[in-house]
Amino acid sequence: MSGILIKGAKTLLPGNEIRECDICIEGGRIIGVNNVPAGFCADRIIEGADRLVMPGLINCHTHSYMAFMRSAADDVPFMDWLFKGVSPIEDNMTDEDAYWGACLAIIEMMRTGTTCFSDMQMNPGMTSKAVLESGMRAVISRGLVGSGNDEGGRMRLDQTYREMEEFKDCDRLSFMLGPHAPYTCDEEYLKIVASEAKEHGMGIHIHLSESVSEIDQINEKYGCTPIALAERTGIFDSRCVAAHCVQLKDGDIEIMKDHNVSVVTNPASNMKLGNGFCPVPELLEAGVNVCLGTDGAASNNRLNMFSEMELLSLIHKGTHRSPVCVSAKETLDIATINGAKALGLESEIGSVEEGKKADLAIIDLKRPALQPENDIVSELVYCAGGYEVDTVIIDGEITMENGRILTLDEEEVYSHTAAIMRRIRG
Amino acid sequence: MSGILIKGAKTLLPGNEIRECDICIEGGRIIGVNNVPAGFCADRIIEGADRLVMPGLINCHTHSYMAFMRSAADDVPFMDWLFKGVSPIEDNMTDEDAYWGACLAIIEMMRTGTTCFSDMQMNPGMTSKAVLESGMRAVISRGLVGSGNDEGGRMRLDQTYREMEEFKDCDRLSFMLGPHAPYTCDEEYLKIVASEAKEHGMGIHIHLSESVSEIDQINEKYGCTPIALAERTGIFDSRCVAAHCVQLKDGDIEIMKDHNVSVVTNPASNMKLGNGFCPVPELLEAGVNVCLGTDGAASNNRLNMFSEMELLSLIHKGTHRSPVCVSAKETLDIATINGAKALGLESEIGSVEEGKKADLAIIDLKRPALQPENDIVSELVYCAGGYEVDTVIIDGEITMENGRILTLDEEEVYSHTAAIMRRIRG
Repeated sequence: MSGILIKGAKTLLPGNEIRECDICIEGGRIIGVNNVPAGFCADRIIEGADRLVMPGLINCHTHSYMAFMRSAADDVPFMDWLFKGVSPIEDNMTDEDAYWGACLAIIEMMRTGTTCFSDMQMNPGMTSKAVLESGMRAVISRGLVGSGNDEGGRMRLDQTYREMEEFKDCDRLSFMLGPHAPYTCDEEYLKIVASEAKEHGMGIHIHLSESVSEIDQINEKYGCTPIALAERTGIFDSRCVAAHCVQLKDGDIEIMKDHNVSVVTNPASNMKLGNGFCPVPELLEAGVNVCLGTDGAASNNRLNMFSEMELLSLIHKGTHRSPVCVSAKETLDIATINGAKALGLESEIGSVEEGKKADLAIIDLKRPALQPENDIVSELVYCAGGYEVDTVIIDGEITMENGRILTLDEEEVYSHTAAIMRRIRG
Repeated sequence: MSGILIKGAKTLLPGNEIRECDICIEGGRIIGVNNVPAGFCADRIIEGADRLVMPGLINCHTHSYMAFMRSAADDVPFMDWLFKGVSPIEDNMTDEDAYWGACLAIIEMMRTGTTCFSDMQMNPGMTSKAVLESGMRAVISRGLVGSGNDEGGRMRLDQTYREMEEFKDCDRLSFMLGPHAPYTCDEEYLKIVASEAKEHGMGIHIHLSESVSEIDQINEKYGCTPIALAERTGIFDSRCVAAHCVQLKDGDIEIMKDHNVSVVTNPASNMKLGNGFCPVPELLEAGVNVCLGTDGAASNNRLNMFSEMELLSLIHKGTHRSPVCVSAKETLDIATINGAKALGLESEIGSVEEGKKADLAIIDLKRPALQPENDIVSELVYCAGGYEVDTVIIDGEITMENGRILTLDEEEVYSHTAAIMRRIRG
């Protein structure tokens, strides 16, 4: 079996320690860190001088199909964004459009060091197809909306199971159930989803407590917060990843901690739509597992986890008037190992360790924003923009090399996504 | 005389309108926009297909020498940052170190589309030397600290005048007086500086109202805000650029509006040091000229105006819970023409117009974060990271071409700045 040797690169190890390492990769996995296993044969050597190897970043909440809607509706009130901006595009898009959107999203993510993303999709099979072809890793949730046991809700659940069956041979793909939100799924439907998640041993990916209007709506309908509603429907009885959690009320954090819910914070999206700031320092203080996401390109509008790390580390220092709040080390954990935990993949990805999957971003340190190398951990969060990533390895395969994506044709993707918007906008 | 023709590039014109243009450059200036003047002869043609020409960004507040201190002290309380992080480095640095720091800063800024910066320096002549050699444009302020008419304060003022004389032949350089702040300059010294600024017709560059402790200190000593103190010393009687202005009290905004003071907001630095958020929407509403800066690399830690534009546009939407707050168009004005106004250079730079200096950033639009081109103005602020800039023209000279800086040796600069930190840290 053929292997890759990364030779003498500074390496971001667990605990955010930096050490110079030789890394041996074979059969999709890291099989040696400064330890060459007997019989290891490298037919590819990547020179590590002036480079940093880090675990690939894990984007825990996005909607990849939206990439071609980027900047289609900015600087407008929320309802105009949704009903005049996003909805008319969604109403006119095809399944194939969703595939090209996912390809564009994957290119942007891969170029900026993301090696795994958790996607909530509306066009079953399309993100999976793009993931299969691009060499990416992803966790897919079909967005579920429904009330009671209506036909639509049932159909969307069944689509998840069919897709799992269709892509069961690709071990870079896994699946969660994706109830969209408590304002698009009623209590009974949430209970059905919760019960099926338990039955199949699946995780759940949901939007919760994103906006004030959601809080008001759920309080009016159910007399409780979205978090409390999720708890009473059983949504939190399976491994649950809750996106946003901006508008938390007394008791919400405790409920999430008690049920080991992971929170995906999406700083850019929450600010851009005027929703505010997720209470990340308070969640960390309570011991909740916090991970990081970009949300979709209609509301961010970039899918760059380095930008998101910068925002995460800075905004809470600003709101809490504290320069020690959400440190660079905490931020890197949030963007890597915490994401792996949220997705149930912590034994496989999220750190550079022997036995784990080889999902790695290799960074060119000879870039002005990373010089001098006074504190590389700090520089990854406060200085890097993502464009310093020059090589990406996912599942032991080189998917990007010296700034060139090997698995997708970028020009083709740009041309298709531009054509989609020309067709839809007329 | 030889000219440059940029042929058929999408161009960001005044008012943030995008139109395809042919741009003729000669003698350092834009001499035609979709209008080829008689006798114009282009000996260089830059193909504009898939590219955007925009005015170079104007970084209105930085300390370029600090670039080699990047990430030397992060995630620590403010006093540890200053006294254990920055001061011991400053105490051990030489004038030559400041030159290499300025070179590193210029490389980072040029690579990310900044073509002019306003610098407060501590080592006279060093930034100017780097500017002269690199082809950059800059406005230089020697940082002034003093009390009454003490010798040190006098000496520092005279250093400004000597430097102006020394570099008078470089029209890419201009100068302002740089009283550091009301807590490092006493009232009498501020009056001296104010009076000399008036006498010489010079602008003033000062830090004002950055932190709560500054507000407390000035209130205790003078019974007023730093803004009111600046007003009564005459600092606002010349063209004044006030950096930070985070902690504004009742009446401060009116004072600044009345005296046409420009405010440089530094979003990353203000959050990173735990100072909070400058009230930008309120300043804009009052009609104050707001411009943008990165501050020094010890507190940001990047000198990337695209990152700063993203932060500026997002954080106020977050704090004001409004998706329409500080739009992409406002942000682009703040980072270009408003900066030119603040520096007294609005007839020379800040927009792509016939007659103005040719200070231009040319962007490769075929990058994933800028595709599809749904709304380029929006994408510059919400999607671009700065690394899409591939060519830079300053004063009509190509200083960076297809991603390569032509005027400085990047490797040499990296090697010198790394050596400085090794020497100082031992």
